[in-house]
Amino acid sequence: MAPPSAPSARPRVVIIGCGFGGLEAARALHAAPVDITLVDRTNHHLFQPLLYQVATAGLAAPAIAAPVRHLFRKQANVTTLLGEVVRIDAAERIVRFKDETALPYDHLIVAAGATHSYFGNNQWSAHAPGLKTLDDAFEIRRRVLLAFESAEKETDPARRDGWMNFVVIGGGPTGVEMAGTLAEIARHTLPGEFRRIDPASAKVILVEGSPRVLQAMPDDLSQRAAEQLQRLGVEVRTDSRVTAIDSHGLQVHPAQGEPYRIDSRCIIWAAGVAASPLGREVAQATGVALDRAGRVVVEPDLGVPGHPEISVVGDLAAARSHVPGREPQPVPGVSPAAKQMGRTAAANLLARLEGRTTQAFRYRDYGNLATIGRNAGVVDLTTPLGRLKFSGYPAWLFWLFAHIYFLIGFRNRIVVLFDWASAYWSHQRYARVVTDIEPAAVDG
Amino acid sequence: MAPPSAPSARPRVVIIGCGFGGLEAARALHAAPVDITLVDRTNHHLFQPLLYQVATAGLAAPAIAAPVRHLFRKQANVTTLLGEVVRIDAAERIVRFKDETALPYDHLIVAAGATHSYFGNNQWSAHAPGLKTLDDAFEIRRRVLLAFESAEKETDPARRDGWMNFVVIGGGPTGVEMAGTLAEIARHTLPGEFRRIDPASAKVILVEGSPRVLQAMPDDLSQRAAEQLQRLGVEVRTDSRVTAIDSHGLQVHPAQGEPYRIDSRCIIWAAGVAASPLGREVAQATGVALDRAGRVVVEPDLGVPGHPEISVVGDLAAARSHVPGREPQPVPGVSPAAKQMGRTAAANLLARLEGRTTQAFRYRDYGNLATIGRNAGVVDLTTPLGRLKFSGYPAWLFWLFAHIYFLIGFRNRIVVLFDWASAYWSHQRYARVVTDIEPAAVDG
Repeated sequence: MAPPSAPSARPRVVIIGCGFGGLEAARALHAAPVDITLVDRTNHHLFQPLLYQVATAGLAAPAIAAPVRHLFRKQANVTTLLGEVVRIDAAERIVRFKDETALPYDHLIVAAGATHSYFGNNQWSAHAPGLKTLDDAFEIRRRVLLAFESAEKETDPARRDGWMNFVVIGGGPTGVEMAGTLAEIARHTLPGEFRRIDPASAKVILVEGSPRVLQAMPDDLSQRAAEQLQRLGVEVRTDSRVTAIDSHGLQVHPAQGEPYRIDSRCIIWAAGVAASPLGREVAQATGVALDRAGRVVVEPDLGVPGHPEISVVGDLAAARSHVPGREPQPVPGVSPAAKQMGRTAAANLLARLEGRTTQAFRYRDYGNLATIGRNAGVVDLTTPLGRLKFSGYPAWLFWLFAHIYFLIGFRNRIVVLFDWASAYWSHQRYARVVTDIEPAAVDG
Repeated sequence: MAPPSAPSARPRVVIIGCGFGGLEAARALHAAPVDITLVDRTNHHLFQPLLYQVATAGLAAPAIAAPVRHLFRKQANVTTLLGEVVRIDAAERIVRFKDETALPYDHLIVAAGATHSYFGNNQWSAHAPGLKTLDDAFEIRRRVLLAFESAEKETDPARRDGWMNFVVIGGGPTGVEMAGTLAEIARHTLPGEFRRIDPASAKVILVEGSPRVLQAMPDDLSQRAAEQLQRLGVEVRTDSRVTAIDSHGLQVHPAQGEPYRIDSRCIIWAAGVAASPLGREVAQATGVALDRAGRVVVEPDLGVPGHPEISVVGDLAAARSHVPGREPQPVPGVSPAAKQMGRTAAANLLARLEGRTTQAFRYRDYGNLATIGRNAGVVDLTTPLGRLKFSGYPAWLFWLFAHIYFLIGFRNRIVVLFDWASAYWSHQRYARVVTDIEPAAVDG
């Protein structure tokens, strides 16, 4: 019999994923008598709300990526492991990695997040990359910068137009940020640098299937956002579904009127989100149901039905917010929700260890904000004093400082602030680096 | 007949490559009545002296890569073009690109630089990447960081040692900087972050074929450099030739004693440099001779024999320095020499345009400096007052400010200074980002 004080006697907690949910769960367990192994496919926590800045050459990747190992160097109960989980063996309580190693657990928190969804049209991914990882951001950066380079080289006017049309599909926060920033690049960053084309004549088109952009926002703020986009030079086409995408353009079907084609060599997908494929693995291992988006339908306390030792948090969880006396509400796929779920899962894990009852997850919605581009944004806050809505320059400033505040690492805050200040004054974008021109050249 | 003021009446200058030589040539022609097209395979000028900092996660790539297009936005006679030149047609005066487009020239400056050479053992490149481009730097960064991650996961002690042995082949400036920085990472950056391995127990081995490191330096400074490396924890093995490299280690043949093997999963090649393959293209097009390293043997004025309209500058040129009354001397492959050649080629181009005689290239050697790691370096300066040699902390400081001074772009100077200051105080390295763990995992 092992002595009770042996390290192996402490419950083993495995957390899969070090996005906002996983990170917060590990932090919340800092004083717990458990041994945590934090597993991720990459070595960094990515601050996804600013990923579009890397894609648009405004920030270097390290400014928004903090090495996980470094973040937890002082939390002695955390071991960091780099690896890709491909199977969960719920009966034996083991997770299995792609490299065929395995890790036993007593408690498992799955926080594997989401990826993009092309709604069954996966062949579109080659022509319209999405934005979830740093590699995605590098690919989009490459395509955006090379489109202008190719336009400069192109002698045929019709083909040149294809390079000068930028299309963003999806009018959520990422789509709005991408479109606004692309317009800024075309109108303010690049002019004067080309000799044959005028970058300011580039078209940026935002295509959204529903009647308005930023659907999570109240109607009037959506309206404000669309106006600000147009002022920045973005064509906003709402009520417009995309029905086909190829390497030279896309087909758009407006709610009213005839379908038409847009020629474009740079199309960005910001439309759909699907749960990580690990959701299917959890379902297979435990029999839990998945919702239409592939998310795990968890219990009120974020546990998996029949497997209280497994919790699912963040974008992978189809969770509901429970407020006593009210109907449970679906939780939006935003980073504050993921963080809150991480904390609840950690608290419930401790409760189970100590024989207490677990609590139902309650999402506290502090509001919603989005930036649109230079000096433009919308904010919708829920404060103790009531609702606060504003837009334009103050919203942009608020967005800016909120994001710097939540960035992880003091150093990154300084770096991002400096980069933004210098970009603001100079209109320049610092990270205009393309290392590989081949694919576009071959394709071109 | 075209009017004499038509733009096409101005001589067309094509410059291939925007390293130090090409960039300086284009700048020196800023007031010349010519139309310059600056062609490069990437969109940025790379500050190669700091590339090892990107490879060792000390700097983000954009800090040392300036977009060429932006650098020349105000020089109206420069057009920037992204493309890979694959042929030079000297009879028709046309350069041809990989994408099958072409560009005519009246004057051509070839500044295509150098790549690494494995001395006929190209199969080594898969196991021991060299350091010339940003992609090379990312690959080395990935291998270094993943080696520690793999060691943390490895349960077999012998295999773990392979992950914890870092070998740098080649004791020139790049090899010395890499080895010193790797030792710093192992001893100062990573300790405390791992739970199973002690990163400080990693071995960093510098293997050099000749009897001393930094051969361009005087004997005593080489000695000083070796001592400083050892103090940082690097094993310096001079007089040791590498005879084989595979995915798990390398074979070393010392000048005295038996050949032996070093197990290592992270081997870095800093030994050989070869001219760009474009040298062969120039030779084929013009009949000019190449030297053993594949460099173009140019005339004293940097022109190609029989083709005064073509000049070759920088690492691709086998140039000599001409001082009246003295024997011509070979020119070292360093950035000040490339810059000086770029200026001479530009001046000679102008001279030919104006019917003046061209000047022979004269290399002005201001000295030599290398950094070794935190607080360590060696400097050998040629000043008007005589020779100045120093090492240690003052040499390191001198190196630091010299590099910041020569970095292109005010913004990058600030960023690098800030990154270095914060790294100096915290021992942390900012750019520890790995996006792709797969190759090592498969290989592992």
